[in-house]
Amino acid sequence: MVTAVALNCTLKAGSAPSSTEKILTEVAAQLLQHDVTTDIIRVVNHNVLPGVEKDMGEGDEWPALREKLLAADILVFGTPTWMGHLSSVAARVLERLDAELSETDADGRPILFGKVAVVAVVGNEDGAHKISADLFQALNDVGYTIPAQAVTYWNGEAMHATDYNDLDQTPEKTAATNATIAANAAHLARVLGAENFPA
Amino acid sequence: MVTAVALNCTLKAGSAPSSTEKILTEVAAQLLQHDVTTDIIRVVNHNVLPGVEKDMGEGDEWPALREKLLAADILVFGTPTWMGHLSSVAARVLERLDAELSETDADGRPILFGKVAVVAVVGNEDGAHKISADLFQALNDVGYTIPAQAVTYWNGEAMHATDYNDLDQTPEKTAATNATIAANAAHLARVLGAENFPA
Amino acid sequence: MVTAVALNCTLKAGSAPSSTEKILTEVAAQLLQHDVTTDIIRVVNHNVLPGVEKDMGEGDEWPALREKLLAADILVFGTPTWMGHLSSVAARVLERLDAELSETDADGRPILFGKVAVVAVVGNEDGAHKISADLFQALNDVGYTIPAQAVTYWNGEAMHATDYNDLDQTPEKTAATNATIAANAAHLARVLGAENFPA
Amino acid sequence: MVTAVALNCTLKAGSAPSSTEKILTEVAAQLLQHDVTTDIIRVVNHNVLPGVEKDMGEGDEWPALREKLLAADILVFGTPTWMGHLSSVAARVLERLDAELSETDADGRPILFGKVAVVAVVGNEDGAHKISADLFQALNDVGYTIPAQAVTYWNGEAMHATDYNDLDQTPEKTAATNATIAANAAHLARVLGAENFPA
Repeated sequence: MVTAVALNCTLKAGSAPSSTEKILTEVAAQLLQHDVTTDIIRVVNHNVLPGVEKDMGEGDEWPALREKLLAADILVFGTPTWMGHLSSVAARVLERLDAELSETDADGRPILFGKVAVVAVVGNEDGAHKISADLFQALNDVGYTIPAQAVTYWNGEAMHATDYNDLDQTPEKTAATNATIAANAAHLARVLGAENFPA
Repeated sequence: MVTAVALNCTLKAGSAPSSTEKILTEVAAQLLQHDVTTDIIRVVNHNVLPGVEKDMGEGDEWPALREKLLAADILVFGTPTWMGHLSSVAARVLERLDAELSETDADGRPILFGKVAVVAVVGNEDGAHKISADLFQALNDVGYTIPAQAVTYWNGEAMHATDYNDLDQTPEKTAATNATIAANAAHLARVLGAENFPA
Repeated sequence: MVTAVALNCTLKAGSAPSSTEKILTEVAAQLLQHDVTTDIIRVVNHNVLPGVEKDMGEGDEWPALREKLLAADILVFGTPTWMGHLSSVAARVLERLDAELSETDADGRPILFGKVAVVAVVGNEDGAHKISADLFQALNDVGYTIPAQAVTYWNGEAMHATDYNDLDQTPEKTAATNATIAANAAHLARVLGAENFPA
Repeated sequence: MVTAVALNCTLKAGSAPSSTEKILTEVAAQLLQHDVTTDIIRVVNHNVLPGVEKDMGEGDEWPALREKLLAADILVFGTPTWMGHLSSVAARVLERLDAELSETDADGRPILFGKVAVVAVVGNEDGAHKISADLFQALNDVGYTIPAQAVTYWNGEAMHATDYNDLDQTPEKTAATNATIAANAAHLARVLGAENFPA
């Protein structure tokens, strides 16, 4: 069975309303249409220590999150937009994934080969294309494969302040894109699950 | 007297309607409030050859544009957004400016020191923050100074297709930002005109 | 049979020495190890008109290049680094690919779904990570899938002027990465050739 | 008297060796040649809470750092390179600076107008151009002015693992650039100190 983990890289702790949570929930619902269950994790509620090792020692809660990423076939990486950039929480996750560059599976294959990543970005304004670029590059570097049209996003008009959470309903185009990334992620995870990259 | 040159890096040749032309005209009107006259140039109507020299030889029309840039105190760099990126015409201009890294004035100072650059970006969707980042970095590398809040922009909501040209009137926030970049460019050009960076 | 087309987005016309040509030739040799033949095209030698339509009319040589891209399973996108950015020739290609967003195959699937893109970047200094980010995002937007670890690159130390062409031999790490992107592109093109994304 | 604050956005806590600390120390020595004293702060040693307000409440140590930034004329923003990006600590600082967009001085001027920012980036490989782009854009958005050629950096050859700290001596070109950014920052802080942007 194909499974997914979704990382919500909002800055908002606890269970405060989060636009990123909203879009990830929508993507998870679409994944379920393809028999993929998704575990959504709000990263800021975990103590992910700064560093580039897989375990930064006492108090580091990354190792538990890492186990979930390694167990899942699909990563849905969700981040808000701040200053046009991905969040500091998202940056922290990428740094911790850097450690996977030196990890291999039993056949000597980089440990993340065969896994699929898609991206969800929200913001009151402009940033989604650049953020998906940064995420695709970093996630691909460590071994994730990026299926066709792998980003869903919403941002408002220039210099506006509306959040995705404030919208009465999901805009039609974002809803359609949520469905596309779910379908493509599920498909690619299945074909790579059957035939992984060479070691 | 302080003068400006505005480069319109639209892909649209001739006098075809251009959203970038519209915002540059608005910025020029604001610069005039500060007694700065602006020469707007549509780059695609000139044969700017590929390369990184100041003159790429026969047929190259960059040298004439270059003279205008060197004569002006302020550069207003205008570009549309395609795929979330600055246009290929904008990229071509940056490549040609690369040659200025080895040019110096009579005192041995890099030739563009003392000049000021501001940026205008339009697009039917998302890209302005990333494009201003790319432009600030490249223009700063060759010697331009970037005044406080040096970008004006407009883009529509995610995945929408409206152009800046299609709007009934200039959105209030973009209009205010047009005024800010003009005021700041004019001020900084004057203070640097009086006291340039050390050689 | 799986085939590839490699776009060399150097600024150097004719058959002038090109570092990008060198790395693309190396990648093509690696692809051949996987029974994939590669057609390397130096884009600057073709008159690719500015615009975002699949055919910009009289004199436009993009339609012929487009046919080659549509016929190939794998795109190897090669670009030099100028000012830390991809070349204006590369930007032009991306703009022309924007037209494919509205093209579909007989089943209603976006026309580039099922195709695979990998990236090769060279420069005398710094830029490869950012350029691969920009390329992955734009190529993925139009429908290409990005296999695990899909970029090979070389750049020298900060502020140095050595070109990839100037090196006595291919650095070991770049050579190993050339092999990785070829193996992963060939594998993914085969599995997607057998089972394309859903329409 | 002109003063500077340098933010070291390394991931390394305590007083662990830091390449970013090394280059910031070198820039500070150059600033001193222009009678500018610099306070170097290692941000990771302070508890900067996630969020976009100037004070995120109990336990937040950003307000104390913020006071130092507001008191200084020059910001030297130093970051390491991870995955080709600025560090998560640097991203956290940018997010906290976002709050300054709504702060004004006694004349109604954005509170950071008149202040100058320069950038120092180190990494074992590629990333400095992109990181300076991201930093220039974010720092400029909140009100900093970017003097001509405002970035100093060092990174090694592609895919190499040497740190700036490992070098026997500062490479000549980086040393020269350290001197340039210091001279230009000091000059611009002085002229803007005498004549700030209009309110």
